Amino acid sequence: MYEKVIELIEQKNFKELKVLLEDANEADISECFDEISEENVIIVFKCLSKDKAADVFAYLEPDVQEFIINKISDKEMSNIINDLFIDDMADLIEEMPANLVKRILANTSADKRKAVNEILQYPEDSAGSIMNVDYIDLKEEMTIKQALARIRKLGEDKETIYSLYVTDSRRKLVGVITVKDILLNDEETRIGDIMDDNVISVYTHTDKEDVAQMFDKYDFLAMPVVDNENKLIGIVTFDDAMEVLSDEADEDFEKMAAMAPSEDTYLKTPVFTMYKNRIVWLLFLMLSATFTGLIITRYEIAFEAVPILVSFIPMIMDTGGNCGSQASTMVIRGLATDEIELRDILKVWFKEVRVAALCGLTLAVVNGIRIFIMYGAGQFSLIIVLGLTIILTACIAKSLGCILPMLAKKVGLDPAYMASPMITTIVDACSILIYFNIACILMNVA
Amino acid sequence: MYEKVIELIEQKNFKELKVLLEDANEADISECFDEISEENVIIVFKCLSKDKAADVFAYLEPDVQEFIINKISDKEMSNIINDLFIDDMADLIEEMPANLVKRILANTSADKRKAVNEILQYPEDSAGSIMNVDYIDLKEEMTIKQALARIRKLGEDKETIYSLYVTDSRRKLVGVITVKDILLNDEETRIGDIMDDNVISVYTHTDKEDVAQMFDKYDFLAMPVVDNENKLIGIVTFDDAMEVLSDEADEDFEKMAAMAPSEDTYLKTPVFTMYKNRIVWLLFLMLSATFTGLIITRYEIAFEAVPILVSFIPMIMDTGGNCGSQASTMVIRGLATDEIELRDILKVWFKEVRVAALCGLTLAVVNGIRIFIMYGAGQFSLIIVLGLTIILTACIAKSLGCILPMLAKKVGLDPAYMASPMITTIVDACSILIYFNIACILMNVA
Repeated sequence: MYEKVIELIEQKNFKELKVLLEDANEADISECFDEISEENVIIVFKCLSKDKAADVFAYLEPDVQEFIINKISDKEMSNIINDLFIDDMADLIEEMPANLVKRILANTSADKRKAVNEILQYPEDSAGSIMNVDYIDLKEEMTIKQALARIRKLGEDKETIYSLYVTDSRRKLVGVITVKDILLNDEETRIGDIMDDNVISVYTHTDKEDVAQMFDKYDFLAMPVVDNENKLIGIVTFDDAMEVLSDEADEDFEKMAAMAPSEDTYLKTPVFTMYKNRIVWLLFLMLSATFTGLIITRYEIAFEAVPILVSFIPMIMDTGGNCGSQASTMVIRGLATDEIELRDILKVWFKEVRVAALCGLTLAVVNGIRIFIMYGAGQFSLIIVLGLTIILTACIAKSLGCILPMLAKKVGLDPAYMASPMITTIVDACSILIYFNIACILMNVA
Repeated sequence: MYEKVIELIEQKNFKELKVLLEDANEADISECFDEISEENVIIVFKCLSKDKAADVFAYLEPDVQEFIINKISDKEMSNIINDLFIDDMADLIEEMPANLVKRILANTSADKRKAVNEILQYPEDSAGSIMNVDYIDLKEEMTIKQALARIRKLGEDKETIYSLYVTDSRRKLVGVITVKDILLNDEETRIGDIMDDNVISVYTHTDKEDVAQMFDKYDFLAMPVVDNENKLIGIVTFDDAMEVLSDEADEDFEKMAAMAPSEDTYLKTPVFTMYKNRIVWLLFLMLSATFTGLIITRYEIAFEAVPILVSFIPMIMDTGGNCGSQASTMVIRGLATDEIELRDILKVWFKEVRVAALCGLTLAVVNGIRIFIMYGAGQFSLIIVLGLTIILTACIAKSLGCILPMLAKKVGLDPAYMASPMITTIVDACSILIYFNIACILMNVA
């Protein structure tokens, strides 16, 4: 796609370019904009038909949107803006700098401006902030025929016509019906007789992550959003829910690697922003590692007497860290996808301890064999010291790995912060303490 | 929901229970089955109406499905089985033990058996394995009126009627049209005139992860699946794509924490399976840490002369590990979501090195201040040794953290394996080597 576009621009064959763009998918066209040079952005954009331009515009990255708005006339902008769905429009307003927002709103129809402003009032993480007000509502007393007429009349500008919502005279949500039900029933059937009156809905202030999880559970195409009085306010569509799920997974990956979540894609995030996202945790974890250092200092006598003890520090620290992050990753992900509930804490802990005991035992035996091969039978006490350390470390690491994320959730923190880096730092101190204590007792060095 | 069901069972009020279940959503009912006791599973299941039973059955976990099939008659089973969509049926066959599969297939209609067998032939990770053959196909020469009649005739048993596919006389896919287009156009319009002939489709052998990414990109409700001759074979619906995306994220989380991916949910995975999933990587990483240990052994002289050097080993190892996993997490996730391409490798590396230099410098300065406060001005050379080590370690860690996942992808390995545990183990060896080398040179100990 991209190569073809460039070729046609170079040949100045704009007629062919227009045909190509008209036939292509919006998402594919928008991808081209990330690749072509700035001067060509405007050439390509102006080759799009009026309808297509708005469709493509909604898919573009904010920096490209900003660039385009700065280069087109008020009239051209007004055409695009007034063709955008309300939720895409709200996204745009949130991303643009203040001077552009002013210009955008000045070129927006009054109705649309009002609708967008309403959406922008909802908190950032709420269902209200991702909802769309372009839905079709029906009444119970309508027949299928009347409903079809209404769909035909209003359908053009709506994001979805596949789920239709039935409201009473006070706009309260009383039922839901799909276009499938409408098409498969007789023309004279009353909507009220075939609609599903057990409607699953969310509130405007429901956390958008919870909304996305509900899409995952129910396989809905759209979910109605109501206010406290059960009045229908808007709908959330599955594509927005998928985006929330994917953003949440991104955020969890970042938090679990000790970073502040980033807003932008990797390649577009400036170096200094990345530095800011990463340095706070690095500093905190580095200073926390001081404790482990202090513990080691206390056992100087031990490793001066048996210097080889030092060479096993990395193995013990890494094994503890790895055991801990395996447990914490499973538990954090389980909590995020609702597979694990807080009340399962004892079940989870008991499971992890058993896994830890099995893993610890295996690791201890293999490590013992390795030491025997490398240093011979003379190091029997070293084998015992390391074996006991590994088993205890595995048990402590896996216990902390499952308990800390659950405690974090309990007190309202994001469990994702209790991932590998944090667990590793805490387990390090424990494992080194265990190691030198066992060594001092069994090797008679202190 | 669950409490109400239990209450009604205890009161033996099955009439009310039937009403409650009939009104409730399938996904909600299926959740109850995870909570109630085995004897109640059958009671509740038998209270479901025929249609509802099949809907709920498709949502159940494999172990509950197996339990139910073992307890119901062939006739009851046949009712459920023949109401399942082909893709749900294929999932069932894959999950059940061999003796049950035989019984299930014996009670399946011949058509359905054939369709299921075809799906089961596709490789596990392919689009073919998650597709559904319940779609509606139209012809170019049909009018809207004829198309609507066909939808009304066939729609009942189809998973989706919202995307309709247009094929020619040889079953080749030539266009796609939505129910919205059909409803909003005139009855006499020819399908061929309004269909979108630039169809985006996937092959039966396309990786299902790629298919899911395409849903994310295009916001489709369904995607047609064709064979090598562009003949329409089936469709993938968005709910299956969402499941693939969520499973892939699960798998990535597991691989990135050095575990083999698990099939089941956390609470249902047996302890021994968890042990098997985790122990291989733990062993490999433990044995790899031997190298770091050997490096330390080589520098015994250094830490016998300056014992305090040992106490900084944890801080250096942790900082290196954390720097590396930040970079690798961002790159692995970027590769998984197609935000980063292999050709960006130099851009990514240059970015990471600059971030590493900034982070390293900050960490070195803060660490210097800490040492000054704790040990006084006498430790100037220690401050320099640690500062240089931290800066170099940060740069190496972040470089390896971005380059190794990309190299893994280049040679066809899953980048997710080049995450925190692997990077940490490699960076450990590098950082310890740097540390003792700088110490020996600047402190004149070797």
